[in-house]
Amino acid sequence: MVFKKITLIGTSDESFDAAADDALDRAENTLDNIYWAEVEEFGVELADGREYQAELEVAFELE
Amino acid sequence: MVFKKITLIGTSDESFDAAADDALDRAENTLDNIYWAEVEEFGVELADGREYQAELEVAFELE
Amino acid sequence: MVFKKITLIGTSDESFDAAADDALDRAENTLDNIYWAEVEEFGVELADGREYQAELEVAFELE
Amino acid sequence: MVFKKITLIGTSDESFDAAADDALDRAENTLDNIYWAEVEEFGVELADGREYQAELEVAFELE
Amino acid sequence: MVFKKITLIGTSDESFDAAADDALDRAENTLDNIYWAEVEEFGVELADGREYQAELEVAFELE
Amino acid sequence: MVFKKITLIGTSDESFDAAADDALDRAENTLDNIYWAEVEEFGVELADGREYQAELEVAFELE
Amino acid sequence: MVFKKITLIGTSDESFDAAADDALDRAENTLDNIYWAEVEEFGVELADGREYQAELEVAFELE
Amino acid sequence: MVFKKITLIGTSDESFDAAADDALDRAENTLDNIYWAEVEEFGVELADGREYQAELEVAFELE
Amino acid sequence: MVFKKITLIGTSDESFDAAADDALDRAENTLDNIYWAEVEEFGVELADGREYQAELEVAFELE
Amino acid sequence: MVFKKITLIGTSDESFDAAADDALDRAENTLDNIYWAEVEEFGVELADGREYQAELEVAFELE
Amino acid sequence: MVFKKITLIGTSDESFDAAADDALDRAENTLDNIYWAEVEEFGVELADGREYQAELEVAFELE
Amino acid sequence: MVFKKITLIGTSDESFDAAADDALDRAENTLDNIYWAEVEEFGVELADGREYQAELEVAFELE
Repeated sequence: MVFKKITLIGTSDESFDAAADDALDRAENTLDNIYWAEVEEFGVELADGREYQAELEVAFELE
Repeated sequence: MVFKKITLIGTSDESFDAAADDALDRAENTLDNIYWAEVEEFGVELADGREYQAELEVAFELE
Repeated sequence: MVFKKITLIGTSDESFDAAADDALDRAENTLDNIYWAEVEEFGVELADGREYQAELEVAFELE
Repeated sequence: MVFKKITLIGTSDESFDAAADDALDRAENTLDNIYWAEVEEFGVELADGREYQAELEVAFELE
Repeated sequence: MVFKKITLIGTSDESFDAAADDALDRAENTLDNIYWAEVEEFGVELADGREYQAELEVAFELE
Repeated sequence: MVFKKITLIGTSDESFDAAADDALDRAENTLDNIYWAEVEEFGVELADGREYQAELEVAFELE
Repeated sequence: MVFKKITLIGTSDESFDAAADDALDRAENTLDNIYWAEVEEFGVELADGREYQAELEVAFELE
Repeated sequence: MVFKKITLIGTSDESFDAAADDALDRAENTLDNIYWAEVEEFGVELADGREYQAELEVAFELE
Repeated sequence: MVFKKITLIGTSDESFDAAADDALDRAENTLDNIYWAEVEEFGVELADGREYQAELEVAFELE
Repeated sequence: MVFKKITLIGTSDESFDAAADDALDRAENTLDNIYWAEVEEFGVELADGREYQAELEVAFELE
Repeated sequence: MVFKKITLIGTSDESFDAAADDALDRAENTLDNIYWAEVEEFGVELADGREYQAELEVAFELE
Repeated sequence: MVFKKITLIGTSDESFDAAADDALDRAENTLDNIYWAEVEEFGVELADGREYQAELEVAFELE
């Protein structure tokens, strides 16, 4: 059994939780067999309102 | 005055905040004189829905 | 174009998100041209209830 | 000449070395021109016996 | 569900794998519900032959 | 809006700047919507002259 | 032979050395077979005079 | 003698060296007694061409 | 309640403790409401005798 | 008593343990009074089969 | 085959690239069989103009 | 001008400051042109009383 990890950055104008869920939603739409995710960094872009960002490493099983 | 730090990981199916509170609830039920806590890591287990996890170092005073 | 980064720690008795917003509110009240912020650390002070803390590096453009 | 790095996690019920080889076997089956790999982390899953895990960054040349 | 992590250092005069197993053996003798372990550091004491050491963080569920 | 980050290592026999540009050139040839890049490491291979290397994490928007 | 590490924070109104000794004193009063300690962090609390703090990981042999 | 460190991010459309010099130019225009600087990070913004960025901690003596 | 952190480097020809105190003295002369400080680094300049240096992050409350 | 640390990288076509032993063998052939070693990194070179590498910091007493 | 790594800091009044080359020039004048180098840190001394500094770990094969 | 850094660990049964001075004394006895030193780690060996240890990187100019 081998896993692969990819790095996704989700965004939200609401909260860090919603930004993390945004990245997880994307991962689940395109990948099967996701096992876990680790938050690498939280940040905020402020040029135009507050865009919360969550960088996650997402691990899924390779078939 | 000497403090001790222990590492707890709380879980929640709602949010990172709730996972951190889960660890703090547990700490407060079994320890007196808790002073502060530091978030070490946020993660998500995805095998069966989304289980948010918060790893905290909790510092309390030794008597 | 040169940016400067300063470190602020916001607090909240509600959540980490609110603590981060507290630091951003303060930054926006006193600084122009804020571009982004990075979360450096989340913590909780527990001496008197739960005070959530969010340490952020805030980057703004120098004129 | 440009290299790309990907992150794989190999597993074994024998040893960390075998877990690393598991990740390298997988990489060699699907990628050409692998040059080097770096161990990022060793861990053990213990829910059902001992599953040794080795997280590796694997670098290969892009054509 | 709350987990606790403790830090153990196993030793062996054979190999790093055996040193890690030494720490895991000890953990399993005294703790129930161990879920995972993370290698924090490998070292060697050389005063009297080679003593391989493996420092592990071991996570178990609190009841 | 979700971003993905990949890790590329560019090379040059001239300078670190040229090695970074080498990685960015490659990224721009194969990816749309690249937003930013972060230098992870600079190194030099010396087996046959000086080959400067720049490891970059490149972030692009997923559609 | 298995070691365990715990994290203690000693305090002193004199110096960092005295704060470290404070943590070691406490460890020696309650633990046998302490082998070594590593300084993790020095800090100062300033709310009421200067309280020097020394966070140490203390390693002792499990019987 | 007490020094203070501030964090500046210089930019350039030419190179990392020029981005670092941009931050140093700014520092020298507004501060006396600058002693040294440390590069914290190099990055590139790619939304509109390549903007090289250099984050520096700049140390100067307080009078 | 929002805190700000600044970075000061104190010096002494006696000891690291005195160098840290040098930075704290300076901070207390110019800032109100200092709450805590964290030692970031100790160093020694040796060009002309031994000058001990202590780099501290000092946190104070913004009004 | 003063110790010095040097950094050696041992290699093996068998395993990480053998690569670490390779570095320790070399250290013991040329140095007296070696006390301990710390693994800094494990890697694999793959250009021509698998060459396991172990980077160790080796500490020995200066006379 | 065993490698050794040493740490050199090159200097230049022109650029970070030239400072790195300065360290590599020195290494090549006194060592055979240099294989690779890793940049550990870039800095600038500003007491008397701008002296760019590049700290490199240089790896060479021991015979 | 090229500097070299070496790693020394001084010891003392008195204090961390004395342990650092022990390493600096040794460095000054055998090296010319020492410019600066950085504390990498403080520790304590406790097998036989308290032996304070200070690990320093010492930088000196190569001629």
